[in-house]
Amino acid sequence: MTTTVAAYAAPAAKAPLERTTIERRAVGEHDVLIDIAFVGICHSDIHQVSEGWGSATFPMVPGHEITGTVAETGPSVTALRVGDRVGVGCMVDSCRTCDNCEAGLEQYCTGGGPVWTYNSVGKDGQTTYGGYAQKIVVDENYVVRVPDALPLDTAAPLLCSGITTYSPLRHWHAGPGTKVAVVGLGGLGHMGVQIAHALGAEVTVLSQSLRKKDDGLRLGADHYHATADPATFEGLAGTFDLILNTVSAPLDFAAYFSLLRTGGAMVNVGLPEEAVQVTLQSLYGNRRSMSSSGIGGIAETQEMLDFCAEHGIAAEIEPIRANQVNEAYERVLAGDVRFRFVIDATTI
Amino acid sequence: MTTTVAAYAAPAAKAPLERTTIERRAVGEHDVLIDIAFVGICHSDIHQVSEGWGSATFPMVPGHEITGTVAETGPSVTALRVGDRVGVGCMVDSCRTCDNCEAGLEQYCTGGGPVWTYNSVGKDGQTTYGGYAQKIVVDENYVVRVPDALPLDTAAPLLCSGITTYSPLRHWHAGPGTKVAVVGLGGLGHMGVQIAHALGAEVTVLSQSLRKKDDGLRLGADHYHATADPATFEGLAGTFDLILNTVSAPLDFAAYFSLLRTGGAMVNVGLPEEAVQVTLQSLYGNRRSMSSSGIGGIAETQEMLDFCAEHGIAAEIEPIRANQVNEAYERVLAGDVRFRFVIDATTI
Repeated sequence: MTTTVAAYAAPAAKAPLERTTIERRAVGEHDVLIDIAFVGICHSDIHQVSEGWGSATFPMVPGHEITGTVAETGPSVTALRVGDRVGVGCMVDSCRTCDNCEAGLEQYCTGGGPVWTYNSVGKDGQTTYGGYAQKIVVDENYVVRVPDALPLDTAAPLLCSGITTYSPLRHWHAGPGTKVAVVGLGGLGHMGVQIAHALGAEVTVLSQSLRKKDDGLRLGADHYHATADPATFEGLAGTFDLILNTVSAPLDFAAYFSLLRTGGAMVNVGLPEEAVQVTLQSLYGNRRSMSSSGIGGIAETQEMLDFCAEHGIAAEIEPIRANQVNEAYERVLAGDVRFRFVIDATTI
Repeated sequence: MTTTVAAYAAPAAKAPLERTTIERRAVGEHDVLIDIAFVGICHSDIHQVSEGWGSATFPMVPGHEITGTVAETGPSVTALRVGDRVGVGCMVDSCRTCDNCEAGLEQYCTGGGPVWTYNSVGKDGQTTYGGYAQKIVVDENYVVRVPDALPLDTAAPLLCSGITTYSPLRHWHAGPGTKVAVVGLGGLGHMGVQIAHALGAEVTVLSQSLRKKDDGLRLGADHYHATADPATFEGLAGTFDLILNTVSAPLDFAAYFSLLRTGGAMVNVGLPEEAVQVTLQSLYGNRRSMSSSGIGGIAETQEMLDFCAEHGIAAEIEPIRANQVNEAYERVLAGDVRFRFVIDATTI
């Protein structure tokens, strides 16, 4: 039996979100029904509502930074029980049989790609709806546990912005003895700084201005420089092993590459909607690389939550009521949030 | 005492090369004087004569694929003797004290950069002149030995096109069990195919047409596909661990990235003169990377020559007389060479 739940949806591309109702599928053998407690507003919600990353399906219920508690479990669910504190991130299924799925890289599933939490099509052929809703039904294999040490509100953004920064920081070996630059101190960047610091790296924030310098240092950065100041690029030439770029606007990539050491990598997790210009000569001089990374696998997401619990890391959030979501979108686009809006799902 | 030698030089940007004379410095403590036997024509010679990579110094004597024999040694030279068969590549000096120089990565010298074989300024403040000349004086530390198994004519292009492909193939672990694509079957590509094959990789050539297919397979490619055929990109999606791009014209990078496996790298050793367009989304889906690589260090260049001798690898060349150099430039630009012009330096 399906469940009717209240949700906030964009009825069409670029349209304001409105309160509506959606149907959640009946709880299947391996499913859990989750009472959503909090859901973060991710910049990618806005990209997708505006079709900035390509055509999308409407109505769209965004939201892939979901925390809550298990309200019901399917008959074959073994890992979770009613009352468990849980999280759901950007994907709710994948083929489970390709090399990547078997390697715990479900986010790079080559068997048709993951089923994304919203604006995607599930194995049942139905459009998926995200977490701006009272409840959600998800296969237990795509649900992670939220450790007791993490509050459900500040943990919600970890499900996307936390894992999006944790995974590349681990993959590119951020740790003691490495120098990591985080470009941008927004929703992603403020997680990247905390995680890179906790991993033991020497962390530098590169932000347009010094406006958020105090925040950056408080979050664990060792250094903070304004990219509007040309002296930043002169003084830091050849410094970093890894640049984690969280800005989803085109940059002067050659200038950033010049900050990398020999063999250094610039990994982009903020994705501009348009193509960017790259001068290959700027990669040539030091065997530098430009890469990108998408969220992380399910096991790695659990590992990230456990890591955050152990190190006292969480998002800094501004809680809002559901009916403030459109205003919040405007403020995200204006860069006016420190550092993540989180919707109290009980207000939906 | 300096030595006056005949050479071919471009008197100004984009001007035809002309026979002239230049002075070689007196043979210093650690120098050797080399009688040049052969010198390859590299595409980068043409880029530099035409100032395609930035402003240059004229007159310019190009040439950095040099083989010959030692004619004289400075008093402190220990590693080389008169009569030794030797080679000189793209650089003739570097700071020798930075981390990269100490690590054998002289090509990435951070102490002011390497002194390039031509169109550069040596430690004596003099402009360097390359190998389109009868003789050259080089510090012994930047001279490599040409193994007896390698003829001096077909070995000459190894000093640039050989090491330019060998170094990234080694760095990105081409070998048994890996699938490597080589884009372009020109001077660089025909070396990349041979070396990747000898390293044990499964090698695919991606070329605009099938015109050189027989050559590609003969050189060691396992597969050969035309990039003008859209089916190539559909059929090979997600295939390669490494794409070595030897084409110095802008490509549809997103299409090539789609051919990479998870974590795969596209390494560009052909450098377009203009910036290229990259859609970061096309790197995002599989943690792919885009990189570049420049020649190799001195020890690695020696390793490459020894590897080529062991595996019977050499360039396929079209020998020319020095007075054919301008015609040869035209033919390189037209893609009309299989696969490398090599100037017989006795004709200078």
